[in-house]
Amino acid sequence: MIQRLCIVGVGLIGGSLAKDLRRLGLCREVVGCSRHRENLQRACELGIIDSYDVDPAKAVAGADMVVLAVPLGAMAQVLAAMGDGLAPEAVLTDVGSAKCSVLEAAAEAFGAIPGNFVPAHPIAGTEHSGVEAAVDGLFEGRRVILTPVDETNAGATHRVRAMWRAVGAEVLDMDPAHHDEVLAATSHLPHMLAYTLVDMLGRMEERVEIFRYAAGGLRDFTRIASSDPQMWHDICIANRDALVSALDHFQADLGAAVDAIRDGDGTTIKDLFSRAKQLRDRYARESDPG
Amino acid sequence: MIQRLCIVGVGLIGGSLAKDLRRLGLCREVVGCSRHRENLQRACELGIIDSYDVDPAKAVAGADMVVLAVPLGAMAQVLAAMGDGLAPEAVLTDVGSAKCSVLEAAAEAFGAIPGNFVPAHPIAGTEHSGVEAAVDGLFEGRRVILTPVDETNAGATHRVRAMWRAVGAEVLDMDPAHHDEVLAATSHLPHMLAYTLVDMLGRMEERVEIFRYAAGGLRDFTRIASSDPQMWHDICIANRDALVSALDHFQADLGAAVDAIRDGDGTTIKDLFSRAKQLRDRYARESDPG
Repeated sequence: MIQRLCIVGVGLIGGSLAKDLRRLGLCREVVGCSRHRENLQRACELGIIDSYDVDPAKAVAGADMVVLAVPLGAMAQVLAAMGDGLAPEAVLTDVGSAKCSVLEAAAEAFGAIPGNFVPAHPIAGTEHSGVEAAVDGLFEGRRVILTPVDETNAGATHRVRAMWRAVGAEVLDMDPAHHDEVLAATSHLPHMLAYTLVDMLGRMEERVEIFRYAAGGLRDFTRIASSDPQMWHDICIANRDALVSALDHFQADLGAAVDAIRDGDGTTIKDLFSRAKQLRDRYARESDPG
Repeated sequence: MIQRLCIVGVGLIGGSLAKDLRRLGLCREVVGCSRHRENLQRACELGIIDSYDVDPAKAVAGADMVVLAVPLGAMAQVLAAMGDGLAPEAVLTDVGSAKCSVLEAAAEAFGAIPGNFVPAHPIAGTEHSGVEAAVDGLFEGRRVILTPVDETNAGATHRVRAMWRAVGAEVLDMDPAHHDEVLAATSHLPHMLAYTLVDMLGRMEERVEIFRYAAGGLRDFTRIASSDPQMWHDICIANRDALVSALDHFQADLGAAVDAIRDGDGTTIKDLFSRAKQLRDRYARESDPG
């Protein structure tokens, strides 16, 4: 049972987590924190938080569980602003899509990585964002990756794991650098491709036609380009080393495919497409729908 | 009214068109043609065709409407094999996803582009293929692009337009080269990106994990990588000039984005993502769902 939960950044993820924990009777009180007062008032009206403070140091005071759900670009600032407000026994966790940068920010803010800080990444969300988008059961059947380091207290990790399991998530542990590499390839890179493609189509002369004649497949393929630009900017910058490495790898692979097309090398193209289809079909069978 | 419809290549597109025309009472008789006898037998069992012949010259004999729905890689061979079987007044059309290559194949097979040949491209389909995947109403609300050339008879174009309108499609005319350029950018390029990404993920060391930890967005993004590899191989090779040009353009744009990420140039990244989101949201609102 969480006595006082503090959600710093009451958006889709933070809001949905608070909603679930309250609905399941797993937290007594929820305090919100955000730079935007109107957002906090809306979260109160929606019954997601009980009270709020725009000052992180005041908002976290007295909380036994603090969840940082601000965009990655705001993590360093919020961690620094929290200062001494955090109770020594409070567990601190986050929901950032890149982990090394958050660990660095925590070390910077506190002088060292705090033992009660458990970096976490719930792999959930939609292309929508904001507290209005918060829903019940968002984490049901989803995966949450914890990336505890040597400094992390086992007790703190245990509490964060229990919290995510309680809202229906499957919780896994991973090394932070490995997490960043895997997510760069499977999530951050596809977003870069989708954004770049849509922007390219938009800048073609036939812009209007381009979308008019687009086949159904383009709609699914570009759905992630409707994701929040600020959030994805933050993720791409925060995880830039791993992302640049994945992009370099992709550019090389795509270059080889372009060469094969240019040369009319059908065998290479057909082998590439066949391998990919086989893998995608298996992935679709094995993964959860949606 | 079509007296005798000949569908050469009885798969998803050819099969669905025949199904619709028959259901609507718009054709008296349907003759199928394919290299695969078992496929034709199955199409007979499903009631999609009345009879068949594996020889294109025999299959088209006596037909007043011939629809070429074979993969692009088979067009030249089928056009050549049709030989003198085609009645002089018969209208010939196709459903290929690239138009210049089919026009070249027709000119090659007949010595010149036949006046009764109306190149067409129904922008419809799913990632499934084959006659078993044929469904009623596949073209309802979909767009069909006709790319008649100077040689094309207006009467033939009129009949093909009427056929597609009858099954619920919106029919538009376009220059063949322009069609190939637009489709390269909006359809063939995204397929290349999806296939290349899935293949890259499959060849990473963490292969199993990669898909295990993948977020929901990857599923939509890679759906088109489940498309038929042979068909897409044919399309990419048939439309290689326009596709390579679109790929070059994309590689340059992606390279600029990678440079911005590497340099930590957040403004460029955020501007790119914002432009793309705005365009994608407008496209999603304006286009048909699905």
